Amino acid sequence: MPTISKKGRLMPESPIRKLVPFAEQAKKDGKHIYHLNIGQPDIKTPEVALQAVKDNTVEILSYSRSEGSETYRTKLAAYYKKHDIVVKPEDIVVTTGASEALLFLFSSIMDPGDEVIISEPFYANYIAFSTATGVNVVPAICDIDDNFALPSIETFEKLITPKTKSILICNPGNPTGYLYSKQEIKQLAALAKKHDLFLIADEVYREFVYDGETHYSILQLEDMDEHTILIDSVSKRYSMCGARVGCLVSRNKVVLQTVLKYAQARLSPPTFAQIASEAALDTPQSYFDDVIAEYVDRRDTLIKELQHIEGVKVGSPKGAFYCIVELPIKNSDDFAQWLLEHFDIDGETVMIAPAGGFYSTPGLGLNQVRIAYVLNKESLIKAVNIIKEALKVYKD
Amino acid sequence: MPTISKKGRLMPESPIRKLVPFAEQAKKDGKHIYHLNIGQPDIKTPEVALQAVKDNTVEILSYSRSEGSETYRTKLAAYYKKHDIVVKPEDIVVTTGASEALLFLFSSIMDPGDEVIISEPFYANYIAFSTATGVNVVPAICDIDDNFALPSIETFEKLITPKTKSILICNPGNPTGYLYSKQEIKQLAALAKKHDLFLIADEVYREFVYDGETHYSILQLEDMDEHTILIDSVSKRYSMCGARVGCLVSRNKVVLQTVLKYAQARLSPPTFAQIASEAALDTPQSYFDDVIAEYVDRRDTLIKELQHIEGVKVGSPKGAFYCIVELPIKNSDDFAQWLLEHFDIDGETVMIAPAGGFYSTPGLGLNQVRIAYVLNKESLIKAVNIIKEALKVYKD
Ligand SMILES: Cc1ncc(COP(=O)(O)O)c(C=O)c1O
Ligand SMILES: Cc1ncc(COP(=O)(O)O)c(C=O)c1O
Repeated sequence: MPTISKKGRLMPESPIRKLVPFAEQAKKDGKHIYHLNIGQPDIKTPEVALQAVKDNTVEILSYSRSEGSETYRTKLAAYYKKHDIVVKPEDIVVTTGASEALLFLFSSIMDPGDEVIISEPFYANYIAFSTATGVNVVPAICDIDDNFALPSIETFEKLITPKTKSILICNPGNPTGYLYSKQEIKQLAALAKKHDLFLIADEVYREFVYDGETHYSILQLEDMDEHTILIDSVSKRYSMCGARVGCLVSRNKVVLQTVLKYAQARLSPPTFAQIASEAALDTPQSYFDDVIAEYVDRRDTLIKELQHIEGVKVGSPKGAFYCIVELPIKNSDDFAQWLLEHFDIDGETVMIAPAGGFYSTPGLGLNQVRIAYVLNKESLIKAVNIIKEALKVYKD
Repeated sequence: MPTISKKGRLMPESPIRKLVPFAEQAKKDGKHIYHLNIGQPDIKTPEVALQAVKDNTVEILSYSRSEGSETYRTKLAAYYKKHDIVVKPEDIVVTTGASEALLFLFSSIMDPGDEVIISEPFYANYIAFSTATGVNVVPAICDIDDNFALPSIETFEKLITPKTKSILICNPGNPTGYLYSKQEIKQLAALAKKHDLFLIADEVYREFVYDGETHYSILQLEDMDEHTILIDSVSKRYSMCGARVGCLVSRNKVVLQTVLKYAQARLSPPTFAQIASEAALDTPQSYFDDVIAEYVDRRDTLIKELQHIEGVKVGSPKGAFYCIVELPIKNSDDFAQWLLEHFDIDGETVMIAPAGGFYSTPGLGLNQVRIAYVLNKESLIKAVNIIKEALKVYKD
């Protein structure tokens, strides 16, 4: 049989995927599973977006423009303006999710062997996009004891080599919930400028910022137009993960033109989803107010309940809807699987994401898990109680 | 400013893209353009598909499974069975268009420097997917005088080197309309087996087969399960180009697993489009009968009209909705641009695709254009007349 590619062999499997068969078996055994393992919110999609799709008058479902429909990009530019980000429709390439934007961007700005510095722990698929494009990830390790703030800028600068092409942050962060301060962003910008690097920010959780903090986007930086690239998505903002609409925004024309060549090769982003995404821009502020209030409530509940467990360490996330939790265990892959296979309280158990997959540094994160607070408060309390009781009987 | 990637610089621009500014200017000048340049049918999308989207009851637009929804893949397997292709739902990975399937496949089975043999002229974006993955295209040149049949199998075999990993055909072909015979497919299969290569067929035009011919799919081959990979799409079949749903089908588990890792990294194909695609499988046969009759009529009209022009050579396409036409000119890029800039009959002109973009061999196709018969008969007649009159005054 013909062999597959080396790259194909190196492509990581989703870290959660390994647990899926055990979750399926648990379900077959009649267990109820609290899913704390995925970033799929249980929040309803705005009515205005769903209705627009129902009301669509398409007769021939044609390709749209490769860079996304004109009307959508125009309204998107207005959305950014409301968030103090001044961009033109031409600065935007609409993509099939932030995922595609990341893949096309990595391929556009980095060659095999080039390096991207990413603050670690990070969204696991960054490794997949790096592997797919032959790019090497250099982690800037952040510590749970610092609440996952950036390492000092001196430490960060030492990671830069002649191969470094870009710095990537996720703000606010998945899986940490960390919100970068304006000062941190400015320090990174200075570094990117000094070493002539691209500065990429994945801001798909922009709206999910708590405790009265404000989000500072890299596109608000001055004098960085050649360097900054924003990755965005409707997936989390409007609980529209299944739409598959994201975008890449930059004022660097060469980057845009290059990404557009990849976008042209795949013809266009999905039409129905663009209709939904355009309509979603009219979502009333009250929707976000309610969603934010809900997430704050969940986060506070989750953290409080977790802090009651002995030996557990947890940061204080300021954004997104995840947190990294350190448990008094040695191997969270094993613990997560054991929970599904061997533990329940009244037929209920929990699925959590082992944190190893969010680190590229071998050995890090093995005693950590990521918890997504995408369930209601009552479920969260029950789920944390299951973890608490499980830890009493679990043996490494 | 930081430089972009070498790969990014090498990525081809869509060959038609260069003409777009001239088309826009022509429109601004009040000219009507007959678009013979694109594979975007004017045929209506089946009502059953559009209605399913209008009737959707989604409240939370969630990620679907990375390999596509269970129900859709199950119904797809039944569709294939009707076409004498026996596959299981597990043999199918649903993708965001055939485009994504091709990109993930190239990346899964070929490393940079590997070679794919493609019968030439071919769908222009094969070059883009090759460039994006660092794969080298080796053309198997087909001749308009042979109606674009495969070269002899001896000639074909000479193209195979130690770097060759796969053979790719498009059946029926874009841009040639060529339909491969069962015998040709079997010869290619024997070659793939002998040299341990993957045999890939892009069958997105499967339904568009004329003159009582039947389509022979590579998945009907016996004893080739490890080697054959099918690329498919709803784009043309149901005139649903904007859905962005395709798939990759193979009985080779390792290929499927590898492609799935890429699919997992981008999370899922679009949900609304999967709803439409699943419903489209219930499209009545009468829809296809009407569409096929319409395309045959258009093709016959087009060919007849073209044959009336002196110095024009045209093949006899048996499938898809394109044909390659040789014109008495030296440079079709220039001619296509000149038509938009300087020629019209009563304010009407024509946009055609210069064929150079469908060849990787330098110098080939320069006196050819691709015509897509995606317009009604009356428009086709007018459009060909414009080309005819234009050729009388055009000077190379
Ligand atoms: C940080 C981050 N970036 C990107 C993505 C992918 O988003 P999309 O659904 O737009 O592809 C996710 C999804 O979970 C994410 O958490
Ligand atoms: C031969 C061929 N393959 C693939 C595609 C891409 O199809 P999709 O819209 O499914 O990405 C096209 C589109 O024109 C095509 O002609």
